[in-house]
Amino acid sequence: MSDAFSFTVKATDGAARCGELATPHGRVQTPAFMPVGTQATVKGLTPADVRATGAEILLGNTYHLMLRPGAERISGLGGLHAFMQWPLPILTDSGGFQVMSLSALRRLEEKGVTFRSHVDGTMVELTPERAVEIQVLLGADISMQLDECIGLPAKREEIERAMQLSLRWAERSKRAFETKLRQGYALFGIVQGGDDAALRRQSATALVDIGFDGYAIGGLAVGEPQDVMLKVVTGTVEALPADHPRYLMGVGTPDDLLQAVSRGIDMFDCVLPTRNGRHGTAFTRYGAINLANARHADDPRPLDEQNAHPTARIYSRAYLNHLTKTNEMLGQVLLSTINLAYYQELMAGLRAAIEKGALVDFVAATKEGWARGDIQPR
Amino acid sequence: MSDAFSFTVKATDGAARCGELATPHGRVQTPAFMPVGTQATVKGLTPADVRATGAEILLGNTYHLMLRPGAERISGLGGLHAFMQWPLPILTDSGGFQVMSLSALRRLEEKGVTFRSHVDGTMVELTPERAVEIQVLLGADISMQLDECIGLPAKREEIERAMQLSLRWAERSKRAFETKLRQGYALFGIVQGGDDAALRRQSATALVDIGFDGYAIGGLAVGEPQDVMLKVVTGTVEALPADHPRYLMGVGTPDDLLQAVSRGIDMFDCVLPTRNGRHGTAFTRYGAINLANARHADDPRPLDEQNAHPTARIYSRAYLNHLTKTNEMLGQVLLSTINLAYYQELMAGLRAAIEKGALVDFVAATKEGWARGDIQPR
Repeated sequence: MSDAFSFTVKATDGAARCGELATPHGRVQTPAFMPVGTQATVKGLTPADVRATGAEILLGNTYHLMLRPGAERISGLGGLHAFMQWPLPILTDSGGFQVMSLSALRRLEEKGVTFRSHVDGTMVELTPERAVEIQVLLGADISMQLDECIGLPAKREEIERAMQLSLRWAERSKRAFETKLRQGYALFGIVQGGDDAALRRQSATALVDIGFDGYAIGGLAVGEPQDVMLKVVTGTVEALPADHPRYLMGVGTPDDLLQAVSRGIDMFDCVLPTRNGRHGTAFTRYGAINLANARHADDPRPLDEQNAHPTARIYSRAYLNHLTKTNEMLGQVLLSTINLAYYQELMAGLRAAIEKGALVDFVAATKEGWARGDIQPR
Repeated sequence: MSDAFSFTVKATDGAARCGELATPHGRVQTPAFMPVGTQATVKGLTPADVRATGAEILLGNTYHLMLRPGAERISGLGGLHAFMQWPLPILTDSGGFQVMSLSALRRLEEKGVTFRSHVDGTMVELTPERAVEIQVLLGADISMQLDECIGLPAKREEIERAMQLSLRWAERSKRAFETKLRQGYALFGIVQGGDDAALRRQSATALVDIGFDGYAIGGLAVGEPQDVMLKVVTGTVEALPADHPRYLMGVGTPDDLLQAVSRGIDMFDCVLPTRNGRHGTAFTRYGAINLANARHADDPRPLDEQNAHPTARIYSRAYLNHLTKTNEMLGQVLLSTINLAYYQELMAGLRAAIEKGALVDFVAATKEGWARGDIQPR
């Protein structure tokens, strides 16, 4: 087994493909969903808990980790894998998205972005070079270029300006990454361009010219309707090389995953399964279920008798309702676990369907299950 | 294996003894520490997590469960064991202590206590008979009589009044429990009498005359110094039969456990390991360690390399410091786990020492470890 980063497409079904990423910390079957480990933890879950849901790769947040406990500190402790006791692959974002969305005071310049830390109030500078340096210190198997991500809707001029800046930062990121070269570690570029098809194609083409190990689609799931997002995905995928992984950042709902995989996306990350789990929503084969609803209070049935993960099978809806109503930590832990297990089960189902050339049927059957609702066979 | 409740003393060392409780849901080695599962959950931990710390019996809180989700509801769902997926023994308190400490508006009468629910504002009545009924509905292996627990210091007249009322409630609890008789389920009486040795003896003697499956010492750890508590324990134990289990309610610190076991106590419950864990304190063989302290921020050592539980061995102090500083749920989960594992390790050590007749040495070595502090051998 080589320790070089690689991506192999093993089967295709229409635009969709299933494949395998090889990274220094192991292999990842794609399409893959990455749970979000914001502050070096998937909230409430041990690494063993996360692994048991079927996850093979985690996402870490550069923005949070650079501020606390600090990239140099994590490096001194052996890197993010050792720090959080997650031995499998890690992808880190560049911090750009969260600087834009989380820090109140910030100044964007050609050089980079300067912002006020929400932790200690100091001013912090994040440049393409520093974003790469941080991710190398963390020891990420896959690093992301720094980009500027803007919300939608936005004016075309503003979208184009941010896209062009992101391209210049892409070049600088690549140059910085090359000086740190470690065998098998990967750097992905990020396509920007908002909801403008021409700008997206221009961004994708320019990134491919620079040359990255994989290509992400950023700047989506930022307020636009699903059909707008999917149109951008379709157009952008056409401009990306078939032999490189494609990563749709920050997406999404279970239906988003079905749709985007069908359009050729290989990787996803999203806080939805854990965040909504903490707020009492379960994602299941019967659709989304709000456990705070009083109708569950006397229901002895588990959430999903067919799920491979025991947490979805052994606890009653009545118990999950009780834990949700009383705001007990265990309710947040169990629903986060159940949701991550369902997301992973969905990805495994997608991979198997693509291998069999049965993706359309799988998508239809899955959506039918959601539409039927949570009336389980007894 | 009989399903009748029984208690067997297997070895003694001075006043201390080690033994075994047999209950409908299994056997418990004593001295035993019971983690507190307040609202049908040990906060943040799955039943499997709790079991893995070494716990063989849990405590459930009648006060919380009667209000939410309700005793009749839990009964309809198969009882508390099934509801929370804890298959091993459960002891429930009677609700009396928490009515006194948690409900703002309450009226105490001979018949029982009426209080305003903190959940929905309704007035709720708790009598000795209702407390027994609730605990039977929950399916507790060991039920506790309703008592009146007052804080210390208090006037002798007030202590005596509450003690006498608790004795009359003890008789009514026993009669009520007899009407519900189920093979092997147990009812414990509770000794009251504050810090007054004569009242404690009077209470203990009267309870033994009524006849219970075990005897608890209530009304301690309510503000008095440790030496006052231990004096009461010593005096009360002398008035209790050697062939019945003795349970010191709501106690305590690791040192409280050493001292009380040395004086003949068999059972304990306390929120300290989980509550303090949630607030960043670890209990270890090196004493209590405040993980929020900045000195841990770069410390790669685990909390306790010698602990049998992996959670105490695999995560660095630096990581636990980070999780504590960022108030991450996982920090609360890991420190609760580590603390429960340490409490259980302490109880296992006490049992082994009593069996070998080496209790004094074990206590001395344990206290020496705490005094030495957390400078671990590398």
